[in-house]
Amino acid sequence: MNHDEWVRSELRQMGQSLGFKYTPAEEIENRLAKVRVEMKKMGLESLLVLGKMNLFYLTGTTQDGLLFVPQDAKPLLVIRRELARAQVESPLDQVVSIQSGAGLSSLIKQYCGGLPNTVGLELDILPVKDFLWYRGLFPRVNFLDASKILREARRVKSSFEIGLMRAAGDVGQEVYQDARKILKAGMTEIEFGGLLEAIAKRLGHEGLLRVRSFNYEAYSWHVLSGLTGGIVSQSDSPMGGLGLSPAFPVGASRKVMKAHEPILLDFGICFHGYQVDQTRMYSIGEMPRKFIHAYHACKEIHDAVLEDVRPGTDTEALFLKTLDLAEKLGCKDSYLGPPGLHTRFIGHGIGLELNELPFLAQGHSSPLEEGMVFALEPKIVFPGEGAVGLENTILVTSNGYEILTPIAMKIFQV
Amino acid sequence: MNHDEWVRSELRQMGQSLGFKYTPAEEIENRLAKVRVEMKKMGLESLLVLGKMNLFYLTGTTQDGLLFVPQDAKPLLVIRRELARAQVESPLDQVVSIQSGAGLSSLIKQYCGGLPNTVGLELDILPVKDFLWYRGLFPRVNFLDASKILREARRVKSSFEIGLMRAAGDVGQEVYQDARKILKAGMTEIEFGGLLEAIAKRLGHEGLLRVRSFNYEAYSWHVLSGLTGGIVSQSDSPMGGLGLSPAFPVGASRKVMKAHEPILLDFGICFHGYQVDQTRMYSIGEMPRKFIHAYHACKEIHDAVLEDVRPGTDTEALFLKTLDLAEKLGCKDSYLGPPGLHTRFIGHGIGLELNELPFLAQGHSSPLEEGMVFALEPKIVFPGEGAVGLENTILVTSNGYEILTPIAMKIFQV
Repeated sequence: MNHDEWVRSELRQMGQSLGFKYTPAEEIENRLAKVRVEMKKMGLESLLVLGKMNLFYLTGTTQDGLLFVPQDAKPLLVIRRELARAQVESPLDQVVSIQSGAGLSSLIKQYCGGLPNTVGLELDILPVKDFLWYRGLFPRVNFLDASKILREARRVKSSFEIGLMRAAGDVGQEVYQDARKILKAGMTEIEFGGLLEAIAKRLGHEGLLRVRSFNYEAYSWHVLSGLTGGIVSQSDSPMGGLGLSPAFPVGASRKVMKAHEPILLDFGICFHGYQVDQTRMYSIGEMPRKFIHAYHACKEIHDAVLEDVRPGTDTEALFLKTLDLAEKLGCKDSYLGPPGLHTRFIGHGIGLELNELPFLAQGHSSPLEEGMVFALEPKIVFPGEGAVGLENTILVTSNGYEILTPIAMKIFQV
Repeated sequence: MNHDEWVRSELRQMGQSLGFKYTPAEEIENRLAKVRVEMKKMGLESLLVLGKMNLFYLTGTTQDGLLFVPQDAKPLLVIRRELARAQVESPLDQVVSIQSGAGLSSLIKQYCGGLPNTVGLELDILPVKDFLWYRGLFPRVNFLDASKILREARRVKSSFEIGLMRAAGDVGQEVYQDARKILKAGMTEIEFGGLLEAIAKRLGHEGLLRVRSFNYEAYSWHVLSGLTGGIVSQSDSPMGGLGLSPAFPVGASRKVMKAHEPILLDFGICFHGYQVDQTRMYSIGEMPRKFIHAYHACKEIHDAVLEDVRPGTDTEALFLKTLDLAEKLGCKDSYLGPPGLHTRFIGHGIGLELNELPFLAQGHSSPLEEGMVFALEPKIVFPGEGAVGLENTILVTSNGYEILTPIAMKIFQV
């Protein structure tokens, strides 16, 4: 049988029968409109979108290729592999094949009415080698940094996107419920994390978490127990954990989990590309009072932020409010990491990537907007002892907030 | 307790008690010597290493930072987060802290005796934005593309590295053995893949596979059954599978596995950063003869390559030999993908990343060398029906080869 014929006649139905949500044409049009507003602000005639999640956002497919977005003509999706599948997955009209980059300028002339004078590129993630390649293809074009354009366009989520994030939250709820049945003394952190991942995957979790940053690797299995909760690592996180080796020195380790230790379960879920982040505490038997108190401090900080979450609230002010509260609660030194290693954020925007706008962080002052989604994660770290925390994924609504991660807010003692 | 003091006094022992293999000083010295040979060939005075796996290769740590390698002085590892841990993990002498990039040139002057005239950078992976940042820090320095230097240095593996790859192979063997007990009709591909991942993780598999390429995402759970084996996707692979959504359209899906389907299990393992790749076929009850014949063709092609594996053999010749053999065996159209979508390689170098040297591929002529390691993967694809394949990770020895993935070479029928 011919592969492309099979894909064109069968793939969509097969996907749908297994729960695939294809991005609707109207959704893509709205996203393109937002991007064009940002392009106009920069005086940009066109955009060449290359980063995988930006491509997915504007096309509905992650097949290997690139998207050319002119300000005043239809976008052109150019696919290296696999064309038929991209045509099935994307609602865009113009989805064409390319075998080598050399033909790109003629495709743009043919489909978009000529070459632009200015092209925006994602210079925050595009490797120098690729940049030089595109510059060589278009020697007369002026290339500008358009990193911010898609970041800005993606900062407010649509109801389609929020629906997928709610579904991710539902997967998370099942995982955290099952965690109570699975957790046993004598199990290693990674064994626990691996079993939870297996449950999450069965329910549609896509395994990889994504971050828009050079060298930064995200992962779901952030299970830290006792001592390992007190270890900082490479990542911009209050606690990194021990991990499995110096090559992967973060997250769950082969340390055995014991009774009475604080067990921190920070398990991100990715469903149809959309992520939620969440943290709850577990223990086998009761954990020492010190950690229970610290958990309640996290809860108090969490709730104090939510009190102020609505359109217009300043993101940096929210972060600074938590610093004051941590001081009042007597946990300032341990709040968001050990002394000298504190992180400087209490929340991060989340969606297709884990570091979207807004940042509830020092030096990041901007108003919350309806439709923004962020992970809110107060954490407290005691080196040589352990860590506690609470985290939810929060949607900003017209007059307040909605929690997209519906797990009960309590310590799960088994 | 002070975090850094705890790390300095306890971390190494805790890691060792859980099986951490720290990279020995002599190993790092040998690697630096190889890199300096390549630098000399290019006339490069120094190298600024930024990519995570190159950093790990030359330092033994993946803490967040960068390595400055002068041709004639000791290297300098500059750490953003977390310093104490990098000092524990790396055998290098000069491991120092930095709070902002502005201090980098003074650190280099202080520790390495002055600024160089030429600096090599990994322009194949370094984003433009980061490149511009470093160029701004060193306005008088001439930056050159040093992408090839570490690629060349890493192409031949040391006995320390081969030991870690053997350990990864042993994890794989257990996973494939347990797969026979777990596999049942009615289970979805992703449920099967998730359970295998849980086993692999418990044994030390690090979860993430790594590829040196913009936009390319690797993953372990490549479980394809019947129909999904015939679907090509974004990746440069003979078959991509259906995946879980258009956002992750590769690998295991929520399709239910049925009796008599060919079930392809291509499950990479990462142990201490080092990867092995492997594929075996499973079926619930017997699979149709067509697929059994195709599997035997894959086995014949696999064995014909191994016959010629020894130092000096040309890598492109090995690929071309398999094309001839596929034609003789009557499977040319289905070999390495459907017509029009064939991949053009039969093997890829493997180690810290999945796309290392050598490539056994069209257009990649070079001699095999003792200590090279590559994945050898003949595969046959029938769109609308399914796929079969066999894959092992092969070490080139002084007079032949050693298979690092010791799973029995047969169809596993349950």
